Amino acid sequence: MKVVIVGGVAGGATAAARIRRLDEHAEIVIFERSGYMSYANCGLPYYIGGVITDPEALSLQTPKKFWDRFRVAVRVRHEVTAIDRVAKTVSVRNLETGKIYAEGYDRLLLSPGARPTLPPVPGVDLDRVMTLRTVEDTLRIRRFVETRQPKRAVLVGGGFINLEVAENLLGLGVAVTIVQRPKQLLAPLDPDMAALVHNLFREKGAELRLGGNLTAFEAEGNGVRAVLAGGETIAADMAVLAVGVTPDSHLAADAGLTTGIKGSIVVDDHLVTSDPAIYAVGDAVQVRHGVSGQSALIALAGPANRQARIAADNICGGDSRYDASWGSSIIKLFDRTVASTGINAKTAEAAGMPWDQVVLAPNPHVTYYPGARPMTMKVIFAPDSGRILGAQIVGFEGVDKRIDVLATAIQAGMTAAGLKALDLAYAPPYSSAKDPVNMAGFMIENLLTGKVKQYHSDDVAALPRDGSVTLLDTRTSEEYARGHAAGFINIPLDDLREHLEEIPADRPVYVICQSGLRSYLACRILTQEGFDSRHFAGGYGFYAAVTAGTPVARAAGDCGLVQA
Amino acid sequence: MKVVIVGGVAGGATAAARIRRLDEHAEIVIFERSGYMSYANCGLPYYIGGVITDPEALSLQTPKKFWDRFRVAVRVRHEVTAIDRVAKTVSVRNLETGKIYAEGYDRLLLSPGARPTLPPVPGVDLDRVMTLRTVEDTLRIRRFVETRQPKRAVLVGGGFINLEVAENLLGLGVAVTIVQRPKQLLAPLDPDMAALVHNLFREKGAELRLGGNLTAFEAEGNGVRAVLAGGETIAADMAVLAVGVTPDSHLAADAGLTTGIKGSIVVDDHLVTSDPAIYAVGDAVQVRHGVSGQSALIALAGPANRQARIAADNICGGDSRYDASWGSSIIKLFDRTVASTGINAKTAEAAGMPWDQVVLAPNPHVTYYPGARPMTMKVIFAPDSGRILGAQIVGFEGVDKRIDVLATAIQAGMTAAGLKALDLAYAPPYSSAKDPVNMAGFMIENLLTGKVKQYHSDDVAALPRDGSVTLLDTRTSEEYARGHAAGFINIPLDDLREHLEEIPADRPVYVICQSGLRSYLACRILTQEGFDSRHFAGGYGFYAAVTAGTPVARAAGDCGLVQA
Repeated sequence: MKVVIVGGVAGGATAAARIRRLDEHAEIVIFERSGYMSYANCGLPYYIGGVITDPEALSLQTPKKFWDRFRVAVRVRHEVTAIDRVAKTVSVRNLETGKIYAEGYDRLLLSPGARPTLPPVPGVDLDRVMTLRTVEDTLRIRRFVETRQPKRAVLVGGGFINLEVAENLLGLGVAVTIVQRPKQLLAPLDPDMAALVHNLFREKGAELRLGGNLTAFEAEGNGVRAVLAGGETIAADMAVLAVGVTPDSHLAADAGLTTGIKGSIVVDDHLVTSDPAIYAVGDAVQVRHGVSGQSALIALAGPANRQARIAADNICGGDSRYDASWGSSIIKLFDRTVASTGINAKTAEAAGMPWDQVVLAPNPHVTYYPGARPMTMKVIFAPDSGRILGAQIVGFEGVDKRIDVLATAIQAGMTAAGLKALDLAYAPPYSSAKDPVNMAGFMIENLLTGKVKQYHSDDVAALPRDGSVTLLDTRTSEEYARGHAAGFINIPLDDLREHLEEIPADRPVYVICQSGLRSYLACRILTQEGFDSRHFAGGYGFYAAVTAGTPVARAAGDCGLVQA
Repeated sequence: MKVVIVGGVAGGATAAARIRRLDEHAEIVIFERSGYMSYANCGLPYYIGGVITDPEALSLQTPKKFWDRFRVAVRVRHEVTAIDRVAKTVSVRNLETGKIYAEGYDRLLLSPGARPTLPPVPGVDLDRVMTLRTVEDTLRIRRFVETRQPKRAVLVGGGFINLEVAENLLGLGVAVTIVQRPKQLLAPLDPDMAALVHNLFREKGAELRLGGNLTAFEAEGNGVRAVLAGGETIAADMAVLAVGVTPDSHLAADAGLTTGIKGSIVVDDHLVTSDPAIYAVGDAVQVRHGVSGQSALIALAGPANRQARIAADNICGGDSRYDASWGSSIIKLFDRTVASTGINAKTAEAAGMPWDQVVLAPNPHVTYYPGARPMTMKVIFAPDSGRILGAQIVGFEGVDKRIDVLATAIQAGMTAAGLKALDLAYAPPYSSAKDPVNMAGFMIENLLTGKVKQYHSDDVAALPRDGSVTLLDTRTSEEYARGHAAGFINIPLDDLREHLEEIPADRPVYVICQSGLRSYLACRILTQEGFDSRHFAGGYGFYAAVTAGTPVARAAGDCGLVQA
């Protein structure tokens, strides 16, 4: 059997190694367009910032090492330009010599990845407008930073790559402006959770242009200027363009293979394309989202690697299936970790799936053990069944653990009852006897069983300030004095039972505290005393963070923050 | 409704707060024998060593704060001495005044915990022989350490408490000897994994007396002497006795409630005892082990807290069930983390459950991102179904995450196929595109599908060295020269294909490498070339660690290590 693989990064290299393990005598050839195989594409931004200092570390394998170990012929700087499905050959161009030749295959595996999306605006091809996909791109940006010592950078696009680039450039002392067409960074997050990331970047000195619509790049002296709709221009010494990725699927499309969203390659659960001799994996293929069941593009290294192993099994006569992608992702930003899994509220809404959410601010470990800093955790669930649909977490230590536990729970189809019962490992340095994931389960169960009702940050602005509802802050008077949402009166939780007569019994009560615990306790008292009450999920800490970037109206009836 | 709760630590305080949330008008009284309620029992050893410096931090709640928030009457230094099930009263002794009185209940919740087991040997009551259960015990040990400045301590018992005490005393410059009757520390681990902990403590300067059987403590001048069977004596300035815990269930037993293992309180899945008005939770109750299905005692804070919430629901008329405990536990020892969940091989064997295991040495994150130090992970599974039964991990960063992901997978009933498919969040600082948990799934599947066979450290000694099998080390010649298992010849993996004719084709081949990856690859080559081969799960790194404490025989036919 002869297997030809197009693309030698995550999917291609993994598949080749697995095929060799299954078939010692197969002939395996990988064609990789760039000069590097199996490179650490997720590590590229860290090299720009000097966190990773050895460029060799970016290349996990070399063709020589791969041949020695796996007897796989890796031809870098070779581009496959066409597939002849009838003859079962691919046309290959040696990018060093320009020579074009045909290579036959019994099985063809496409692992071409995705390329940076280029918006159709003038100037994207300017020398100082860079994209980041390959080791070569990385070395180029790094060299530019070292030799030109840019003082200002404009980053267009606010996803994983550009936020990592932003952190690394800020660390080098470069002033950074991030232009993002949506009104939030990091699409996997809901807007309220993204606000925490906005605050972080502003705190670190970055300028954000959320909702900013790039219309052109223009050369300006030795620099470059980003022009936004509305006329604002941002002058910089360099630009990085990372507004998303597009499946690099022209080979498949040209060969007449079935394509899907954004031209991605359609595969079945065996990762076979519409041609039974051709398999495809990685960022270029369309997958099923495990939560929504909908078709999706999920350009991440984990799914690519798992798909590669499965395709290899099937190429070697096995029967392995790729069920779905679940969208688990994570990014380190300064001392913060931002992670998500499953679907968010936006996606649930768009998919027409009923959803509700809890927001909590748990500590990663008990507060009496040093170093605990709270995280903000949002968990999305189905209001009918309690099934967990997704989660988003922003925090410090312990975020990666909770997102992976939640990802596992979601893949297992767990409900809130499952989260409640999870027997997770507890000792003071690692968690609390009730882990944050258990807490989320408890909170969801309290909602599902009607023990408490909630309201959210989006609801606050619309709350009447005319006395027809009571807005109640149950923190201490000291906490209240340091800042509170406009219109809220203060009765500390521990005094509530003695002050119930001050609260009109015939009107709804909207309660807030710092993290959501004391408002929940207050609502339990109020409910049992006959009040119609709701508590704010996530507390004032979350509310203040979510609204930090919004202007504070101080007039009567305002809905902003009152900062003492 | 009036609820009386015996014990005001994890279970009692949690239950009281939940009962109040469910029933604003219940009368709730907690009796706690010690002087502190809801104290941080898991944090006590850290106070001895000064990691936690404020003794107030050990007390999570005070009776005053608990009354203010929950209107729960907490009576510390009050001991419940008897239950009258007919009259529905408990007898209470005020330990300050000696006064005895009766308190009525509608529902009684027993949360008495477990007390340190005292072996029946002379001298356990000596002044310098200490146990650690309460805040008072902690303050006493701390005061002793501060005022007497002990130079030598003997710790009898090698479980969680004494290992944390050992670390804290070593940190204060106290010489420590640990006496443990079993031949290993930390019973949740299998012996091979425990060997990693033994190496750690020896490296930190502790003396271990594994298999050491205490027969007496004797006073000696200002100190204490531990006498072991066989006559060895260990002189010290202080002793800490922590050989396990015993359910503190005499109240329940005296009242005629059904008891189980070690006198523990038997409860149903609603946490009701054999008396429908009496509930019980925490370290004193017998639980079902979720993996083995057998009755078990699991004295941990997590289950106690979850049980308390469930008992509270049921006391207030709800229908909540406690399914099982899964034995997830974790301990920080120096810069290492040691964790386990589910059952280990010892337990599987004792329960007559078929089991097999994989051992791997994955990095917590990609090696090109700074700071990766490999962990040792063992996963136990059912050879028929591939169901995951348990896991043990020893390592640095990322151990707590993987044990919790595995705990979640085990509770969800996942098989190896589930682990393989887990879509966990990957970025270079946190993981690899194939997470260690995925890797465990891949390895188990390779075993289940017959792609590779294994042998283990226990098997190495019995391997014939007479040429009837080939012992093959596939690391590089440099690695081999630094140390290898006796009798193994060296053919580096990358040279194997050219040296196959040197390996007798008619005899089994036992392969080893450093971590288990290259030996697996070698076995795939050998198998496909017609050899009968097995690889060593965990690699030479694990083998050397497991056998580090055993004497090296250098004679012909030896089975020890050859250290260059």
